[in-house]
Amino acid sequence: MKLSKIAEILNGTRYGDDVEIERVGSLEEKFENAVLYIEKKKFLDKALSLDPAALVVPMGMKTGEVPCIELDDPKLAFIKLLELFAPEGADYSGISKDAHVAEGAVIGKGAVIMPGAVIMRGVQIGEGSIIYPGCIIEQNVFIGSKSVLYSGAIVRERCVIGDECIIHSGAVLGSDGFGYYEKDGRVIKIPQIGIVKLGNRVEIGANCTIDRATVGATEIGDDTKLDNLVHVAHNVKIGKCCYIAALAGISGSVTVGNHVAIMGQVGIGDHLSIADGTIILGQSGIPNDIKKADIYIGTPIRQVREHHRINSALKYLPELLKRVRILEEKLKGDKS
Amino acid sequence: MKLSKIAEILNGTRYGDDVEIERVGSLEEKFENAVLYIEKKKFLDKALSLDPAALVVPMGMKTGEVPCIELDDPKLAFIKLLELFAPEGADYSGISKDAHVAEGAVIGKGAVIMPGAVIMRGVQIGEGSIIYPGCIIEQNVFIGSKSVLYSGAIVRERCVIGDECIIHSGAVLGSDGFGYYEKDGRVIKIPQIGIVKLGNRVEIGANCTIDRATVGATEIGDDTKLDNLVHVAHNVKIGKCCYIAALAGISGSVTVGNHVAIMGQVGIGDHLSIADGTIILGQSGIPNDIKKADIYIGTPIRQVREHHRINSALKYLPELLKRVRILEEKLKGDKS
Amino acid sequence: MKLSKIAEILNGTRYGDDVEIERVGSLEEKFENAVLYIEKKKFLDKALSLDPAALVVPMGMKTGEVPCIELDDPKLAFIKLLELFAPEGADYSGISKDAHVAEGAVIGKGAVIMPGAVIMRGVQIGEGSIIYPGCIIEQNVFIGSKSVLYSGAIVRERCVIGDECIIHSGAVLGSDGFGYYEKDGRVIKIPQIGIVKLGNRVEIGANCTIDRATVGATEIGDDTKLDNLVHVAHNVKIGKCCYIAALAGISGSVTVGNHVAIMGQVGIGDHLSIADGTIILGQSGIPNDIKKADIYIGTPIRQVREHHRINSALKYLPELLKRVRILEEKLKGDKS
Repeated sequence: MKLSKIAEILNGTRYGDDVEIERVGSLEEKFENAVLYIEKKKFLDKALSLDPAALVVPMGMKTGEVPCIELDDPKLAFIKLLELFAPEGADYSGISKDAHVAEGAVIGKGAVIMPGAVIMRGVQIGEGSIIYPGCIIEQNVFIGSKSVLYSGAIVRERCVIGDECIIHSGAVLGSDGFGYYEKDGRVIKIPQIGIVKLGNRVEIGANCTIDRATVGATEIGDDTKLDNLVHVAHNVKIGKCCYIAALAGISGSVTVGNHVAIMGQVGIGDHLSIADGTIILGQSGIPNDIKKADIYIGTPIRQVREHHRINSALKYLPELLKRVRILEEKLKGDKS
Repeated sequence: MKLSKIAEILNGTRYGDDVEIERVGSLEEKFENAVLYIEKKKFLDKALSLDPAALVVPMGMKTGEVPCIELDDPKLAFIKLLELFAPEGADYSGISKDAHVAEGAVIGKGAVIMPGAVIMRGVQIGEGSIIYPGCIIEQNVFIGSKSVLYSGAIVRERCVIGDECIIHSGAVLGSDGFGYYEKDGRVIKIPQIGIVKLGNRVEIGANCTIDRATVGATEIGDDTKLDNLVHVAHNVKIGKCCYIAALAGISGSVTVGNHVAIMGQVGIGDHLSIADGTIILGQSGIPNDIKKADIYIGTPIRQVREHHRINSALKYLPELLKRVRILEEKLKGDKS
Repeated sequence: MKLSKIAEILNGTRYGDDVEIERVGSLEEKFENAVLYIEKKKFLDKALSLDPAALVVPMGMKTGEVPCIELDDPKLAFIKLLELFAPEGADYSGISKDAHVAEGAVIGKGAVIMPGAVIMRGVQIGEGSIIYPGCIIEQNVFIGSKSVLYSGAIVRERCVIGDECIIHSGAVLGSDGFGYYEKDGRVIKIPQIGIVKLGNRVEIGANCTIDRATVGATEIGDDTKLDNLVHVAHNVKIGKCCYIAALAGISGSVTVGNHVAIMGQVGIGDHLSIADGTIILGQSGIPNDIKKADIYIGTPIRQVREHHRINSALKYLPELLKRVRILEEKLKGDKS
C-alpha cells in the first residue's frame, strides 16, 4: 500500500517519498518495508536504527531522513494501521454441519457457528456473533450481538453475555462458586444456583475462570477487560472500564469499583470493596477494603511511596541490629 | 411455593403470614419475593432492609416484622432452600449420537454422555455419572458412579476418579509431571508413567491442573475440594477434607495432611509435608515442612501472630534508622 | 522382564539373582517386584526399607542384600526404565472419521488426528505429529514433525510450532495480547496481529496461555519447558533451555535469556530483560532488569543471601523498636 493512501486513511500529512508499505512494525524488532509509529522524540533514534520505510509521528516531529506522516495521535494511527494490515480472519460463515446445535436454539442473523462447537438447548445467540470451534454454550445461555467466543471458550448454563464481548480460548464462565459447609463431620456442598452476567464490550482472557453466584449474579461491567488466567469468585461485582491482569485472584463477594487497575498475580480477600480509580500493583495482597483511590503495593498493601521507603530501609536492618547492640553495650559500659 | 410448605420441608416452625415464596435470596442483593436466612441477630437489620418476603432464623430469633421460620441450623436450611429453588439442570439423558464413544467403552446404567464428548477405548464410567459436552476421557480411565464432569473437563489416560466427584470445566487430570534431566547439554524428558487418583466426593475447580505421578499416583483424598486454577504437581499426596483455594500451587512430591486449608495463591515448595489441620493464609510461600497445625502466613511463612507483629513494626523501620543514627551521634558527642 | 535383560538394555553390570522385574518404582511408595534407582549411598537404607526386587546403583555401590545393577548414571538408567515399563499409549492411527479436518489442510505421513479434533483451513501438520481429541488447530497454523498436542490443546490462527514439541491439554497458544488505549472515555482494543512461534523440543504445560504478539512474534526457544498454568504475554522472547514453573507470569515484551530457571508463581514486570543463567526462586517479583546471573528471591527480588539475612533479622524488629526506645530514654535521662 502506498504511503499516500495510508496518509489519506489516517487523515495525516505526508512528507517525503510516496513509498510502498507492506506492514506495520514495532520498535521491538526489525521488519522489512514497515511503517513505524513513535509518540515521542526520544524514540526517534531507536526507530531510525530499524531502517523503517516510513514513520508516523506527532505534529511537528517529521524528519528528513525517512518519509513521514504527521498527525495528532500516533497511537490511534497505529491501531488503525494494525487493522489495515491485519491478516484475514477465519473464513467460515453460517452454521457448520460439524457443529452440534440443539433444536430450538436461536441463532441470530449473520452469526457463525464453527465446526466442533456445541450449542445446547434454549441458547440464544445474537446477530453477528461468532462461535469458534470447540466452544460449549450450555443450556439457556444468552449471548448478545457481535460477540466473539474464541476456540474452546465455555459458557455454562443460564449465563448472560452482552454485546461486542470477546471471550478468549479456554475461559470458563459459570463454574460453581467455592462454598461448603461442614456439619457432623460431613462436607456439604452449597449449591450455586446463580449466574455470571457480563456487560457490553467486556473481554475475558484465555483460561480465565468466572464463577457463578450462589444466588443472583457475578457481574462484570461494560468495557472491563480481563487478561489471561484471572480467577473471579462467586458473587463478585466488578465495575466498568477496569483492567485486571494475568493470574490475579478476586475472592468471593468482592466489589470492585469503576476504572480500577489490578496488576498481575494480585489477590483480593473476600467480601472486600475496592474504591473507584484504585491502582493495585503486581503481586499485592489486599486484606482490607480500599476506600481511597491511590496506587497500592505489597502484601499486605501499603501506598506505593510508603512501601518503597520501607523496602529501601530493609537492607539496613541486619546491620541495624548490630548497631543497636553496640549502643546498648556502650551505654551499659557508661553506667558501670 | 407457600411458606408453610417450606417450613414443612425444612422441619422448622413458621410464624406470621403464609406468604408465597418465589426464590431464595442473599444479603448481597435485593430479590423480589425472596426468603433470606440469617445466622446471627446482627444481620437482622441488613436482612430487613432488603424487604424479604420471609426470613429463616435460628431458634428464638423470630421477628414480628416479616413472616419467619425458626429452626436449629439456618445455614443448612439455606442449602436445602438452594436445592429447592435450583433451576432445572441440563435435560439430556443417555448417550448422545453426537458424542464419540469408542467401541468397548463401558458406560454404566443411567450415565449420560452429552454431545461433543469423547470417550476413548477401555474407559469405564460408573452408574449415573454425567459427562458434559466437550469432555475428553482418555484411554483406560476409570470413573466411579454419580460423578459429574462439566463441559470441557479432560481426564488423561489411565487416571482414576472415585464416586460422587465433581470435575469442573477445563480442569486437566493427568498431564505430565514437570521433570527433566540435563546430560551433555541435552535436555532429556523424564517419562511420567504414573496416574492421578481421586477419592470419593472430591471436587476439582475449573481449569485446575493435576499432574500424573512419575511412577505410582498423584492422590487426592475423599471430600477434598479444590477451587479454580489450582496446580497440583506430580506425586503429590493430599489427604481428606482439605480445601485449596484458587491459584494455589503445590510442588512435586508434597504431602498434605487431612483437614488442611490452603488459601488463594499459596505456594508450597517440593517434597514438603504439611501437618493435619494446618491453615495457610493467602499468598503465603512455604519453604519448609509444617510440623505443627497452626495458622500461617507470609513468604516465608510465620505464625500469623508473629507475622502481624513484624508487619506492624515495619512502618517504623525507616524512622528507626534515623533514630539510631541520632543515638549514635549523641553517644559519639558524649565521648568526645 | 528378567534383571539380566534389563542390565543388558541399560548397559550395566548385574550382581545377585536374576530376578523377575515387573515395574520401576520410586523412593516415595512401596511397589511389588520393582526395580529402584539410587544416586547416592545415603538413599540406600530408604530404598532397602521398600523391599525392592533389585536396585540400580552407581559404580562401586552394589550391596549384597538385593540384586543390583551397577552403572555410570543411575538417573539416566531410571529414564530408560520408565520408557521400558511405560504402559502402551493411545492406540489410534491415521485421521479419525470423527475429527473435523478442513479441505486443503495438509497432514503429514504417519500423523494421527484423533476423534473430536478440529483442523481448520490452511493448516499444515508435519510427519508423525499426533493430535489428541478435542484439540483445535486454527487457520493457517504450522506444526512441525513428531510434535504431540494432548487433548484439548488450542493453537490459534497462524501460530508456528517446531519439531518434537509437546503441548499439554488445555494450553492456549495465540490468544490476544492484553492491550488497550483509552481515548475520549472510550476503551479501544489494540489489534493483536502477530503470532506465537515455538522452536523445537519446546514443552508447554497444561492450561498455559501464550499470547500472540501485537506485531511480529512471541517466541519460545528450543528445549525450553513450561510447567502448567504459566502466562506468557505478547511480544515476550524466551531463549533456549529455560525452565518456567507453574503459575509464573511473564509480562509483555520481556526478554528472557538462555538457561534461565523461573520457579513457581514468579512475576516479571513488562519490558524487562533477564540475563542468561539467572535463577529466580518461587513467588519472586521482578521490577527491574536482571543483568547478572545469580540466584534471586523476594518481592522485589534480592540476591538470595541478602534476602535470607534480612528475613532472619525481621523477627527481631518488633523487639528492636522497644530496645531503641529504651536507649532513647536512657540517653534523655543521662542528659537531664
